[in-house]
Amino acid sequence: MALLTDQLASLVGPHHVLTDPADRAPHETDWTGRFHGDALAVVRPGSTDEVAAVLAACDRAGVAVVPQGGNTGLVGGGVPPTGAVVLHLARLDHVGPVDVDAGQLTAGAGATLATVDAAAAEHGWRYAVDLAARDSATVGGTIATNAGGLHVLRHGATRAQLLGIEAVLADGRVISHLGGLVKDNTGYDLAGLVCGSEGTLAVVTAARLRLVPEARHRTVALLGVDSLAAAVACVGRLRRSLPDLDAAEVFLQAGLDLVCSAFDRPAPFPEPSPCYLLVEAAGADDPTDRLGAAVAELDGVRHAAVATDGRGRAELWRYREEHSLAINTLGPPHKFDVTLPGPELAAFAAAVPAAVAAVTPGAQVWLFGHLGDGNLHVNVTGAAPDDEALDDVVLRLVVAHGGSISAEHGIGRAKQRWLALNRSPVERAVFAALKAALDPRGTLNPGVLVDQPAAATP
Amino acid sequence: MALLTDQLASLVGPHHVLTDPADRAPHETDWTGRFHGDALAVVRPGSTDEVAAVLAACDRAGVAVVPQGGNTGLVGGGVPPTGAVVLHLARLDHVGPVDVDAGQLTAGAGATLATVDAAAAEHGWRYAVDLAARDSATVGGTIATNAGGLHVLRHGATRAQLLGIEAVLADGRVISHLGGLVKDNTGYDLAGLVCGSEGTLAVVTAARLRLVPEARHRTVALLGVDSLAAAVACVGRLRRSLPDLDAAEVFLQAGLDLVCSAFDRPAPFPEPSPCYLLVEAAGADDPTDRLGAAVAELDGVRHAAVATDGRGRAELWRYREEHSLAINTLGPPHKFDVTLPGPELAAFAAAVPAAVAAVTPGAQVWLFGHLGDGNLHVNVTGAAPDDEALDDVVLRLVVAHGGSISAEHGIGRAKQRWLALNRSPVERAVFAALKAALDPRGTLNPGVLVDQPAAATP
Repeated sequence: MALLTDQLASLVGPHHVLTDPADRAPHETDWTGRFHGDALAVVRPGSTDEVAAVLAACDRAGVAVVPQGGNTGLVGGGVPPTGAVVLHLARLDHVGPVDVDAGQLTAGAGATLATVDAAAAEHGWRYAVDLAARDSATVGGTIATNAGGLHVLRHGATRAQLLGIEAVLADGRVISHLGGLVKDNTGYDLAGLVCGSEGTLAVVTAARLRLVPEARHRTVALLGVDSLAAAVACVGRLRRSLPDLDAAEVFLQAGLDLVCSAFDRPAPFPEPSPCYLLVEAAGADDPTDRLGAAVAELDGVRHAAVATDGRGRAELWRYREEHSLAINTLGPPHKFDVTLPGPELAAFAAAVPAAVAAVTPGAQVWLFGHLGDGNLHVNVTGAAPDDEALDDVVLRLVVAHGGSISAEHGIGRAKQRWLALNRSPVERAVFAALKAALDPRGTLNPGVLVDQPAAATP
Repeated sequence: MALLTDQLASLVGPHHVLTDPADRAPHETDWTGRFHGDALAVVRPGSTDEVAAVLAACDRAGVAVVPQGGNTGLVGGGVPPTGAVVLHLARLDHVGPVDVDAGQLTAGAGATLATVDAAAAEHGWRYAVDLAARDSATVGGTIATNAGGLHVLRHGATRAQLLGIEAVLADGRVISHLGGLVKDNTGYDLAGLVCGSEGTLAVVTAARLRLVPEARHRTVALLGVDSLAAAVACVGRLRRSLPDLDAAEVFLQAGLDLVCSAFDRPAPFPEPSPCYLLVEAAGADDPTDRLGAAVAELDGVRHAAVATDGRGRAELWRYREEHSLAINTLGPPHKFDVTLPGPELAAFAAAVPAAVAAVTPGAQVWLFGHLGDGNLHVNVTGAAPDDEALDDVVLRLVVAHGGSISAEHGIGRAKQRWLALNRSPVERAVFAALKAALDPRGTLNPGVLVDQPAAATP
């Protein structure tokens, strides 16, 4: 493969083809530490043309290519199999001007969510996709995974923000549709198809993104409630009574205790509650009174704290957002990211600890997530991150309750074995047909999401 | 083909296979009267299984199948080529219960938009896709065309409402994903791919639809403004200053005069204006003051009428909604449905009449549309509906101004020749590859949207 790396060096410059093990290392292991691969090289193209040239060369050589953004994924979707080329897109970090009337901008795949949002905010707009990894997660990575985050309830996931993409096919051909026309029924929705395909159909190099009007007034309430079932009922009611509900997050007392002890923070209320609901309303005028009136009608609320200023809102949010970091202090967790139908959510949560204990005695379960979307992040500590018996029992429990084995993290390598729990043989046959149509040699991210043949050999 | 119609009769019952010319006629000509074909038969399946059986039989026999909903399309996408089977889906009109907490329902392909919306409204929810043909247009047809309508500005087009679909592939295999999980990253977005594919990839039989909270307060303002350019600037400003802006529609004085004379209605203001902007705001609390304050900051507004009660709002809306019917009284118009970037919209509108006159002397141009999305409906009367020289000059003018040749009506048969104006050779090659992957024999809606081989012969 010396010939291929020489060829790649001639395409992107020798400084941007990393073959030294120490240089490759940060790109070969994922954020959770669970997935690792030995890459042939890490290649850092500086333009769409260079991405196209690199892909064409690898496709011809029969070498697998794994696109990588901020490497913040949680299912191993950006980790190379041995011998693959990692296509690191960080240099494509341009953020174009904000179209102030239309509420749009074009960003490169390597731009971070925080950068995009800051550019939008300068002109009274915001980027709707926001998540804890906002300073590392990139436009390209979040498109590849159809990332959700904190505001799906109000604005939808990443797919709903796409007005068009520029992307490179496995053989190096480029598709580009960045005109930003909101209504444009001229053919199949290629942007939506590539979004969520986890790097298996094309490599996103840029996107035209829809922005949302900045809500000038925001109010956050943290509620201590009787139970997870009560929290589900509260959210159902708030969704109808409060159309400017922007987020509805959930966590439990054990998670709150862990956050408070890990980061030396005071408890929000003098007494504990079984469950906590964090809700945010955002509007053109001050939603505090509406939120207060809506909360007053809810059943099962024990304690409430309200914040309207930025600092106070951030304080309340921190109880929720610091869950991942606090759990990580106990060692790498075994992570699940699942959706349950509302009526099944509490029953699922009640059943998880016993199901986990049956296969992994002594492990501890942590539950938190985006309750407005039925999305729970189930974290298990005291278990091996690659314990497949644990995966099997939890994911089957999810499906038994009518849920999805991947809410927003994707299938990646971690859940490929269990995709059949959610998708029928016909659906998987359609996935394979689409993959074969766009990447006939199986060059792009083999082993992720779809069953597929190995990359062709030269 | 007697054998095939006998076989179809055995599958769906003889009463539901229409071969008599008088029975077939309403399904062989479109709403505009422009497109016509002689179908082998019109088949009316009563279940998804029957749809699957009919498709499998036609695919095996090498007979083309054209799915048809309310037959309200405007680009010939639902009209059969000679010898094809029309698959009329009106009997699949079930509307399931409303999930009141989640804000969702499942509807059959044959249910009308009005039926779905009425079911939702009984529980404090609404269906976001609304358009003038609401009593005829169906769930299946609006998914196939990714219909837009009046509230795209706020809620997105049909694709944004889909939580999942049930659909039948060309060979009769069924995919079904109706669980209604808002976040569900388990594979490629088949619902989004089929949506807008105009019946060329699969036949939609049912859908799980997202509902939106009923906005309890609505206010409509009709504004007489100085010019189309002024109207564009007004909408850009309103989008930022009024986050609960729900619709922003435009029409011109000539269209208003035609509506008033066709339906014997009084003019809204004592004096004419060059251009009219109809805006609606909808919120959890009364948006009238916010709308009034936002309108007061606009430049170029000559007259304003405001309505808050249902009857008054409907009166104002009628000036906009009755454009299509009023224009039809002059004979079948030649219709265009295009999107322009905001900064180009007024220049395009100014250039259209001369461009039309150059190829069709004496024709008259009518402009109206969804200004919030940059979507203009260009209607030409006094021209032949099938005047391809007229198509050519107008569509090229659209593209010269950076626009899309199809905003919401789709490509169908009417615009297939001009798709290359908007889509590159690589994009069209990708469309063809996707079509071949899902419909290898070219059975589904041949001649619509994509270039494709004729249906295979037995």
